[in-house]
Amino acid sequence: MHPHQDGPLARLRRGHEDLVLELLRKHGPLSRAELGQHSGLSRTTLSDIVTELIESGAVVATAPGTAPRRRGRPVEALTLNPSAGQAIGIDFARRAVHVSAVNVAHEVIGSASEPHDPGLPWEERIALAERLVGTLADGALRLGALNAIGVGVVGPVGDPDSGPAQPWPSTDLPALLRKRFQAPVLVDNNTRLAALAEATWGAAAGGRDVLYLRLSHGVGGGLVVAGALHRGAYGLSGEFGHIAVESGDGRCSCGATGCLETVASVGAVLAAYRRAGGHADGLAELLGALEAGDPVALRTLEAAGTHIGTVLAAVCNAVGPGVIVLGGELATAGTPLFEPVERALRAHIMPISRDRVDLRPATLGEAGGALGGIALVLHESPCSAITRPLRADPARPRAEEEDP
Amino acid sequence: MHPHQDGPLARLRRGHEDLVLELLRKHGPLSRAELGQHSGLSRTTLSDIVTELIESGAVVATAPGTAPRRRGRPVEALTLNPSAGQAIGIDFARRAVHVSAVNVAHEVIGSASEPHDPGLPWEERIALAERLVGTLADGALRLGALNAIGVGVVGPVGDPDSGPAQPWPSTDLPALLRKRFQAPVLVDNNTRLAALAEATWGAAAGGRDVLYLRLSHGVGGGLVVAGALHRGAYGLSGEFGHIAVESGDGRCSCGATGCLETVASVGAVLAAYRRAGGHADGLAELLGALEAGDPVALRTLEAAGTHIGTVLAAVCNAVGPGVIVLGGELATAGTPLFEPVERALRAHIMPISRDRVDLRPATLGEAGGALGGIALVLHESPCSAITRPLRADPARPRAEEEDP
Repeated sequence: MHPHQDGPLARLRRGHEDLVLELLRKHGPLSRAELGQHSGLSRTTLSDIVTELIESGAVVATAPGTAPRRRGRPVEALTLNPSAGQAIGIDFARRAVHVSAVNVAHEVIGSASEPHDPGLPWEERIALAERLVGTLADGALRLGALNAIGVGVVGPVGDPDSGPAQPWPSTDLPALLRKRFQAPVLVDNNTRLAALAEATWGAAAGGRDVLYLRLSHGVGGGLVVAGALHRGAYGLSGEFGHIAVESGDGRCSCGATGCLETVASVGAVLAAYRRAGGHADGLAELLGALEAGDPVALRTLEAAGTHIGTVLAAVCNAVGPGVIVLGGELATAGTPLFEPVERALRAHIMPISRDRVDLRPATLGEAGGALGGIALVLHESPCSAITRPLRADPARPRAEEEDP
Repeated sequence: MHPHQDGPLARLRRGHEDLVLELLRKHGPLSRAELGQHSGLSRTTLSDIVTELIESGAVVATAPGTAPRRRGRPVEALTLNPSAGQAIGIDFARRAVHVSAVNVAHEVIGSASEPHDPGLPWEERIALAERLVGTLADGALRLGALNAIGVGVVGPVGDPDSGPAQPWPSTDLPALLRKRFQAPVLVDNNTRLAALAEATWGAAAGGRDVLYLRLSHGVGGGLVVAGALHRGAYGLSGEFGHIAVESGDGRCSCGATGCLETVASVGAVLAAYRRAGGHADGLAELLGALEAGDPVALRTLEAAGTHIGTVLAAVCNAVGPGVIVLGGELATAGTPLFEPVERALRAHIMPISRDRVDLRPATLGEAGGALGGIALVLHESPCSAITRPLRADPARPRAEEEDP
């Protein structure tokens, strides 16, 4: 047995190892210099720790040359061993289930998706999720190595400790999933998770202060604040779709009137287009009309975009993001939407902030919620187990790996 | 000398001590059980650490009985030794310098304030601050025990690492203060610091998600998010005064038009009162008219309050605070302002959030900025030195206390 295995020295060392693993889990590949900066550990200590982690199989060093630096000779990058642990994300959207899986080296190893009737009972949605995860398991995902699940759901979700602001529809979703997959489960609002995903892998990758707005059948969003998912006191943040807009008087699904959602959701924009004399059965036709240069369609998007930009300016003045990401089906309209959004944003944001915020289209599409579930696991999972591999040393029994 | 003084065991122990001191610094008095929960240390380890910290004079245990529990027998509370270290806050407001001092047990040991001409040069402002701090030092503050200074300034302040968004007017304020007071200096926007102070000692004490709006000659504010001061990507957050309001068309000092500040600052409200036929040279007269039930004054406050409540609702939908604190001179108007604010807030906030947010008047008055400077030091000071007392043990030289 390792000397001092339960003594303070061993615990100290264990603490340092966990710190290094957590940094690699959170940031992805890092050089030794970057690890030193983030961890605050001395070069000697860090070198000892890294050597042992590589020997134990938890960490892999890429050969110099595969990761060239901008200047000077290429440096070795350290990364978590891709086979040391895995996480999946499940997004229970209104009309579909999306699943994604990444290994702890932050590599997406698979995604799957299936639409369903909005009225599908929860038991069947969960079975569908399990089936989709199974299709990933056939490939690269080894369910036995599954370490945590991040789950997105529609509607407000409160503090993880205090549970959801609204009860789960008819069933205790986290408990059910925990039982099915034999892994810890973290749950949050799926639009908020999409924000975290865009800030982790998507349009705002690496952004520490990000505003994500989703323009879909509903209008919602999420904030990443100082690198972390923002929740608010009751899990009711990011509700940009329910900010009142000037001259808005439509009744909203939330019970209020004049919300952004009543003028900027896919349905609201289609209705406005038809009221102005346009003909479109669905968004695809409206997008076609835009592409064809239909002035009615362009004016309709201009009106919606102006409302959106005005609301974004208000939120920017309050929160000060560095990047705004526009997602959802309506955002696929591109320039005819982004131009008026940008114009209204610049007109109403504090002049000093005008050139400090970047407006970008989302890049993750409908996989965002599931990928955000994974990002949540990588950022917040309380189970450091996710990056604790089995040691090769048979003298150290498995049970000890689970000590606090 | 202590055995293993520079060895890993000593460093581990030192790390645990710092953790315990930091928790007491951040939370104020805690029971041993609470310390155990927050620190994650075992009972035995914690007991050893606490015993040594008490022996060294860094921590004081209150006798059981002075802090009765709600149920069962009273428990001992642990707190930092009030004489072990001190912090001061300085608020360089537009027309006054405010200073406050607390000991590390979170007790305010003095405050002082002096108005000045808005054009007073920075060198003289700093000299004034030094004089005011001196008046505190005559009393309970021992400048030799000063461990850090938190400073509030007008205008945007960026990330501490990247410096202010705008250069300091004509001088390097932090360096000058550091030299004068021989202590580390943290700087932030003074209105944002007032938000942190209200969330620490004031109307929202203990609140983790707090929105603070200050209605003064300007209109600004700050957000406390998940217990920490929120800054935004470029230190430009909390600018609620520059959110556009419906039908607002006045030119704002920020360069935009229609900002909340153009209808809800003290000057804007006075101007609106006069336009409606009221007579008031200053805010005091307007407040008098309100108290006397002057219907023109009441209607003027109603209009301003409606704009304020509408903007607050927008920010609440985005950010989800549990408490809103209204401060600044205009907030002293009380009910004639708070009623329309609350009405508009409830009309425009998502119905599900209506009963989840509390609107409260600020309680710290103009000391808020300076107290917030102290709160910043207590929350964020990188110098763990602030809670490292001189040891009684003469065998441990002072220089070692300053080791990293």
